[in-house]
Amino acid sequence: GKSAELARIANEELAALVARHPDRFVAAVAGLPLNDVAATLRELDHAVHRLGLRGVQLFTHINGKPLDAPELSPVFEAVAELNVPIWLHPARGATPPDYPGEKKSLYEIWHVFGWPFDTTIAMTRMIFSGLLDRFPTLKVITHHLGGTVPFLESRIKNAYDQFGTRTADEDYGALLRTLRKHPHDYYRMFYADTALYGSPPALECGLAFFGAEHVLFGSDMPFDAEGGSRYIRQTLGAIDQMTASHEAKRRILRENAVKLLGMEPGGR
Amino acid sequence: GKSAELARIANEELAALVARHPDRFVAAVAGLPLNDVAATLRELDHAVHRLGLRGVQLFTHINGKPLDAPELSPVFEAVAELNVPIWLHPARGATPPDYPGEKKSLYEIWHVFGWPFDTTIAMTRMIFSGLLDRFPTLKVITHHLGGTVPFLESRIKNAYDQFGTRTADEDYGALLRTLRKHPHDYYRMFYADTALYGSPPALECGLAFFGAEHVLFGSDMPFDAEGGSRYIRQTLGAIDQMTASHEAKRRILRENAVKLLGMEPGGR
Repeated sequence: GKSAELARIANEELAALVARHPDRFVAAVAGLPLNDVAATLRELDHAVHRLGLRGVQLFTHINGKPLDAPELSPVFEAVAELNVPIWLHPARGATPPDYPGEKKSLYEIWHVFGWPFDTTIAMTRMIFSGLLDRFPTLKVITHHLGGTVPFLESRIKNAYDQFGTRTADEDYGALLRTLRKHPHDYYRMFYADTALYGSPPALECGLAFFGAEHVLFGSDMPFDAEGGSRYIRQTLGAIDQMTASHEAKRRILRENAVKLLGMEPGGR
Repeated sequence: GKSAELARIANEELAALVARHPDRFVAAVAGLPLNDVAATLRELDHAVHRLGLRGVQLFTHINGKPLDAPELSPVFEAVAELNVPIWLHPARGATPPDYPGEKKSLYEIWHVFGWPFDTTIAMTRMIFSGLLDRFPTLKVITHHLGGTVPFLESRIKNAYDQFGTRTADEDYGALLRTLRKHPHDYYRMFYADTALYGSPPALECGLAFFGAEHVLFGSDMPFDAEGGSRYIRQTLGAIDQMTASHEAKRRILRENAVKLLGMEPGGR
């Protein structure tokens, strides 16, 4: 269908850009025609094996469908088999509204706050649906430093210590027993990028949660008010101000990406 | 109506508990029959002037209606006039669902993550509706350290620097010009409690954003897995571990509350 064709065009172009400008781009990751699972599997193979792309981007839902929808399972199986990272990007528009009597989300709440919320929800669904138990080697890089997870980590721990006490119509106690570990531990399996646009205290909060091997530099360039340079500048400035060790910063700024992208000397 | 009667019973009982156990309770705050504005105004006056209650609790919506609904304006006017703080508490159930094709929110996402999201939304609505411009002396204490705002503060700043660029059907540029200051500055007008159940890095993130005069001890007791003592213990332990100054911690643990509750010697 159309989505397969568009993904192919985009991925070919990305690969060509990397080949043409090795001084500017070290790698690119694939877009996928996710409304068509068979085409996605073909494109995954083509993008990674033929084009040399180093990972894939997934959105927090596929046309409204959660990532744990059973029909998407072959996609995660293939990504795990290829051993390439997933970049998880939020995707919400002005609907749903923020209040039931309204037609749409006002004041760009859907974007400013809804996106980190969507990321958090998608992570949670991957955990409780058992997706991370089935594919424990998946490397999922969450945008905006893990949505809202690092700030809420103790809330997560304490709420899921009592999982089910606020729900009468599901047996969440039984669900909990099917998981291999405490829900809180799964959230730390994710990776997270630094795209908070600054805020050393928030970056430190995220680093404390995910650990120095799971945080990667990300800037959200070019979506800033200056058309590209501001987010890079602010993010580098904030990382510089962090109290983290030189070693931790080296991992964030370079080594974690080298490892995840499979670019070590002799790697892949 | 029924809500007026119930609020009255609850507030009388709260006042009696404080009177009976001055060693355990320094103050109580009023519940309000918010579906009935006239009764709310009567109850406000009664609770504060007759019963000596020291503030009010509001939820992030009133039967689904946002706090900036025009009919609620007299409530904020009266609270500002009384000069008592508002405790803002999230209120979301298992609907709306997290994905459009589903009937309800799964895995208690509505509670664990939806509540901080609701708090963030309510704060945002108070800002952009002009409520904080009309009542700039309102003291709103947000639960769970300001929802998700401290972690997202730089996202807030940078997104609202470009407010309207993601919206075609509203003139948000014009709206921005009606506000007295940058949206980001309004979020810092709120107060926030420490009810994160631990997490020194998250507490430090919140303190850095709101400042030492706007963070107050709060524990969420008794809603923990031990029936009351765990959240107090964990929160005190986390505050103890914070790198904040002794002076800042004294404010958080005592002085900000003394001031907001009007309990200074010779106060109110």
